[in-house]
Amino acid sequence: MEKKYKIGIDLGGTGIKVGVVDREYNILGKHAVPTVVEKGAKGIIADMAGAVKHVLSELGIQEEECVGIGIGSPGMVDSTNGVVVFAGNLDWEHENIAKLLGEHFDLPIKLSNDANCATLGEAVAGAAKGLKNVVLITLGTGVGSGIVINGKIFEGGHAGATEAGHTLLVADGEQCTCGRKGCFEAYCSATALIRDTKRAAKLHPESVINKLVNGDLDKVNGKVPFDAALEGDEVAKEVLANYERYLGEGIVNLIDVFRPDSFLVSGGICNQKNVLLDPVNEFVKKNCFAGDRGFVPEVKVATLGNDAGMIGAAALND
Amino acid sequence: MEKKYKIGIDLGGTGIKVGVVDREYNILGKHAVPTVVEKGAKGIIADMAGAVKHVLSELGIQEEECVGIGIGSPGMVDSTNGVVVFAGNLDWEHENIAKLLGEHFDLPIKLSNDANCATLGEAVAGAAKGLKNVVLITLGTGVGSGIVINGKIFEGGHAGATEAGHTLLVADGEQCTCGRKGCFEAYCSATALIRDTKRAAKLHPESVINKLVNGDLDKVNGKVPFDAALEGDEVAKEVLANYERYLGEGIVNLIDVFRPDSFLVSGGICNQKNVLLDPVNEFVKKNCFAGDRGFVPEVKVATLGNDAGMIGAAALND
Repeated sequence: MEKKYKIGIDLGGTGIKVGVVDREYNILGKHAVPTVVEKGAKGIIADMAGAVKHVLSELGIQEEECVGIGIGSPGMVDSTNGVVVFAGNLDWEHENIAKLLGEHFDLPIKLSNDANCATLGEAVAGAAKGLKNVVLITLGTGVGSGIVINGKIFEGGHAGATEAGHTLLVADGEQCTCGRKGCFEAYCSATALIRDTKRAAKLHPESVINKLVNGDLDKVNGKVPFDAALEGDEVAKEVLANYERYLGEGIVNLIDVFRPDSFLVSGGICNQKNVLLDPVNEFVKKNCFAGDRGFVPEVKVATLGNDAGMIGAAALND
Repeated sequence: MEKKYKIGIDLGGTGIKVGVVDREYNILGKHAVPTVVEKGAKGIIADMAGAVKHVLSELGIQEEECVGIGIGSPGMVDSTNGVVVFAGNLDWEHENIAKLLGEHFDLPIKLSNDANCATLGEAVAGAAKGLKNVVLITLGTGVGSGIVINGKIFEGGHAGATEAGHTLLVADGEQCTCGRKGCFEAYCSATALIRDTKRAAKLHPESVINKLVNGDLDKVNGKVPFDAALEGDEVAKEVLANYERYLGEGIVNLIDVFRPDSFLVSGGICNQKNVLLDPVNEFVKKNCFAGDRGFVPEVKVATLGNDAGMIGAAALND
């Protein structure tokens, strides 16, 4: 039977998203089930297998028509062996996911980190479609990073590579969740932007930020500083200038190491599009090593949204 | 005729070193000629070709017995096209070296950056012999870096990748030669150590550092702070603790991105061996992402010395 479909799974701390794609990475069908952490790895993988069978059945596609299954997992992943070494939000340590899911299917099963999968997804079907060398960073609770080189996910030598969110911008700087001080993540996650917005609003009671949240700083989200800046608020403008500058520094670091064809950012903050990226691109162009002698990609927003990880997971069986 | 030899060329700002190696990367013969910058690319490459022919002739080896020629060049290199994009100390811009040398030989000619070649050399025949994933940093006038992944030099997507020396440790920190402030190089080159040693000696006239150079701070070299610390000088100890800490931070950054099997350092400062590396290794073990859940290589000193680049260049034709 001709193998013309691929299955991609985006495993998250709260939900499992399964999709079936064709050769052009069009999503033919998808299905989501909750991640019930209490079930443990075996139970979660059984739910995952059920979701896959559900989608295949709905589409009338046989297992034998599929090339394989790919999984994007949070945490530290040993892709060579299909093992999740550690995933805090799933409470997993050394779980052989490829083997566990393999008990349900007679298909090749591949595993990678979720940020890596999202990057591969954008490279095969999204904002970097057709490009071979792509770096993507996700600006969310943390700063995730994925790297595609020569069309394949760059896994480094051992599990725990491509953790660019935990490289330094400022030695002895802001405390990071990882234990280190001054990481990229501690300056450029949405969490960091919210922290800095709150701090600035506290220091400047006259700031529009306070007005926008009716004085309740717990209501500050990643959009508030942009909204305040739009109203001309100097405090918010300074918070954003600072954020954009650090984002630029972190991106320059990655370009100086990887020189990709395409550099993408994703996460809710990126809804600000050019308001966020114009100053960042200006900084990046000025600060990459060897200036205009080297190729400097324009920083762009990823386009696949929540489907990026699933599509990229499917592409693991390329 | 059986092809059992490889030719490696280490091109530097002052000299060209040519070597012929066998399959086990034993150096069978070598020859060096000066780099006469005024001759321009064509002239320098003619000298290089002459040096290669000289070694082959001395060894009684025919061109047809060789697999190919590899060149390690300073500066920004486009390895795909065999072009030196920019090399300040040679006064070169966009010189197609592979093509120029190809006019002298009927052999495949490959080109990479000198730090990359040194890393590959250590991976095939030196401190990381037999290992597939190796990062090496050179602590000299600047901080160079080379990365070997799956046994091959990691070139990134475009020329100008793997410039880890120009990623940040401290935003707005020490001025770097590249224009940026706070680069790894601005804290961890031998030049940076000498700068910090001089500064500390000026601030502390009582320091042993001043005694060791008879009050002439222009005589401070990379060994002086180690010698002063050996004599119990607290000022020198603090300079070194600071240096070692930043070196640790920079190495952690690279491990968190590449997770190599082996992490090597080279350059004159590394003659200090464990005096330098014990505190660095302690720091690195403590600070890599995910702590002892992840594989953390021990930082070791490279062993091939000045031959690393030449051997690695030969290995480009692997």
